Amino acid sequence: MERCGSRGVRYDSNTVLGKSDTRLEGKSLRLASGSSMLGGDAMAGKRPTRRDVAEKAGVAPSTVSLILGDRSEALGIAPATRQRVEDAAKALGYYPNRHIRAVRSGRTGILGLYLRSDQWGTSTGYWAAMRGALERAVSEADLQLLVHCAPEGCLTEEAFARQAGGVVDGVIILNSGQDPIANRLIETGMRAVEIGDRFSPLPYVAIDDASGVVQTMEHLAARGYRRPAFVNFQSPYEGNPRQRQEAFLEAGRRLFGEESVCLEVRDEVQALDGILALDPRPDAAVCSSDELAFGMLSLARSRGIRVPEELALVGFDCIPTLGATLTMTSVCTPMGDMARLGVQKLLDLIEGKAVAAATILPVTLFVAFRERSPSDDFDALRTAL
Amino acid sequence: MERCGSRGVRYDSNTVLGKSDTRLEGKSLRLASGSSMLGGDAMAGKRPTRRDVAEKAGVAPSTVSLILGDRSEALGIAPATRQRVEDAAKALGYYPNRHIRAVRSGRTGILGLYLRSDQWGTSTGYWAAMRGALERAVSEADLQLLVHCAPEGCLTEEAFARQAGGVVDGVIILNSGQDPIANRLIETGMRAVEIGDRFSPLPYVAIDDASGVVQTMEHLAARGYRRPAFVNFQSPYEGNPRQRQEAFLEAGRRLFGEESVCLEVRDEVQALDGILALDPRPDAAVCSSDELAFGMLSLARSRGIRVPEELALVGFDCIPTLGATLTMTSVCTPMGDMARLGVQKLLDLIEGKAVAAATILPVTLFVAFRERSPSDDFDALRTAL
Repeated sequence: MERCGSRGVRYDSNTVLGKSDTRLEGKSLRLASGSSMLGGDAMAGKRPTRRDVAEKAGVAPSTVSLILGDRSEALGIAPATRQRVEDAAKALGYYPNRHIRAVRSGRTGILGLYLRSDQWGTSTGYWAAMRGALERAVSEADLQLLVHCAPEGCLTEEAFARQAGGVVDGVIILNSGQDPIANRLIETGMRAVEIGDRFSPLPYVAIDDASGVVQTMEHLAARGYRRPAFVNFQSPYEGNPRQRQEAFLEAGRRLFGEESVCLEVRDEVQALDGILALDPRPDAAVCSSDELAFGMLSLARSRGIRVPEELALVGFDCIPTLGATLTMTSVCTPMGDMARLGVQKLLDLIEGKAVAAATILPVTLFVAFRERSPSDDFDALRTAL
Repeated sequence: MERCGSRGVRYDSNTVLGKSDTRLEGKSLRLASGSSMLGGDAMAGKRPTRRDVAEKAGVAPSTVSLILGDRSEALGIAPATRQRVEDAAKALGYYPNRHIRAVRSGRTGILGLYLRSDQWGTSTGYWAAMRGALERAVSEADLQLLVHCAPEGCLTEEAFARQAGGVVDGVIILNSGQDPIANRLIETGMRAVEIGDRFSPLPYVAIDDASGVVQTMEHLAARGYRRPAFVNFQSPYEGNPRQRQEAFLEAGRRLFGEESVCLEVRDEVQALDGILALDPRPDAAVCSSDELAFGMLSLARSRGIRVPEELALVGFDCIPTLGATLTMTSVCTPMGDMARLGVQKLLDLIEGKAVAAATILPVTLFVAFRERSPSDDFDALRTAL
């Protein structure tokens, strides 16, 4: 392995791709002046050590370890000494090595987030929203998140093997459905929770899917709709959508007196075409997700179909979307609470505390502005929220 | 610290929040049957060890370490032996401890992603999209991503101290602007790259902002617009928006022959109100981001202002958005390429290779379907993309 010099990085040239210009502006870079690695790295000696901090602060090296390692024995050390050590460490740019701390304490302060191949790499929709909620929850708990993106077609076992092995204190998985990961985690003894599915063998935080669908159906009935259809993406993973569909059929029989139609579709084109082809034609689409509802809304607009006059659309999850947040009637999934309670459940497991197997959160239907107010109400409602 | 029993988790009761129901369905949970931790943990003995694998495979424990530790000395070991060890490890559920491997090899296979308080917790927009792109890039490189969400108001140094210390092989930061994190990383000798800003002291991957704005202005001029205004969010971080504004003013003078107007706004309401209040009134808004452009589009719609007939809107970044992807004229930022090249640059730095200080990618203007085709073209274009 070739290494760069100890006080600088060599540049071959500026990389220019396409027709763009490149400016270097004579910046001088100091990089890789020391290594953050351990174990025989030739450059490791250049970083400040525990001994350097001890000398500067006038204490024993072991005192530095106690204070900077957040160890309980450090509680008895005088605040002034603690401050001196912290100041010295800051001045020298010294940070205790997390690996050594982890081997010693058995804790890394890192939670793993295992994402299936359909869950990572997204920039909109439920997974992106849940990732954002988890970032907030983990940050509030003063922890970090190790995101493991399971490669497509990779055996779960193989993917999991990379996640395991002491880097994380516990693992969060999302809506595992039929994915064998949940049972695999149990087999290996890893502390783990699931956020999103109600049929997980792991302790989980989920929502009351059925209640969300029932509220939707009652809303539609109250507005005078008579023939709702349920629309769901095809997916190898079951779980919530199945529950939503069952609740839809049950509420349909009760409120509309006949067997309602359920469609399983590849995309919004198939969904809209499918609905328009039905006879009698449904007057409302209860979508299993906002992704599907927003896709259908956009497509309906482009075809001149008026929503909700000709076809009402209801989504699920109230996912924020650029410039269109709260413009879709949708079941509000409390993703922030789910993430916070999921992280708390995992931390309790890690600390050996008793946890509830199931935490199920209530949901409420949000009725879109465009359905309940003239356009000039928009600003007032926006400001109120 | 209280610990749960070795073959089960105690449950106090099911947690019920609000009015939702809770079902346990007699699931039996096996959890925490062994610990993933090292170092004096009482339960560590229950996990399979290197020795167990060696016994099952009929080899020496050191051979297990060589093979499962991906060490170069293992190259000489017969494939049949390797297979036997891997099978034994799989059967026993044994994974080599990453911390021990990291201390020995100086590599963890983990890249750090440092996110400023305005960059994490998002579920739409540029940061969510870039996070998705980075997940793809890191997964392709068979690595994992440690996401560090810097708390709001937290000193950068303090935040960084948690990130550092051997857990990551290198760090990625996004559009640091005036954030001191870039220089802090240089001081500590951590390998790091920046994705997004052209004024970083770190090796960076960025886009040709000016070219994107020039293409936008030429597009507007060709369509007969005469009074474009530039609109930008107020932000403590400078960088790309500043460059976009300068390019706007320069192109404005060249193409429209007079000083163009630039607005700095808190939100889309201020943006739209500001533009409508100008005399002469601008006929186009060149927005520094899609977030702003989509916000203005939604607000304009709710007020009955026709886009683009009364006011053209152009965004920046071509961010996918639920049900509205490719419906906004916008400068396409190649986020996937930025992420891939940023990860590659960091890996090169980690391996001590020479890297270019600057990699600047070209951009192209995407013209929204609604501006260039009757509505029935929508499906064909959608399918073609």
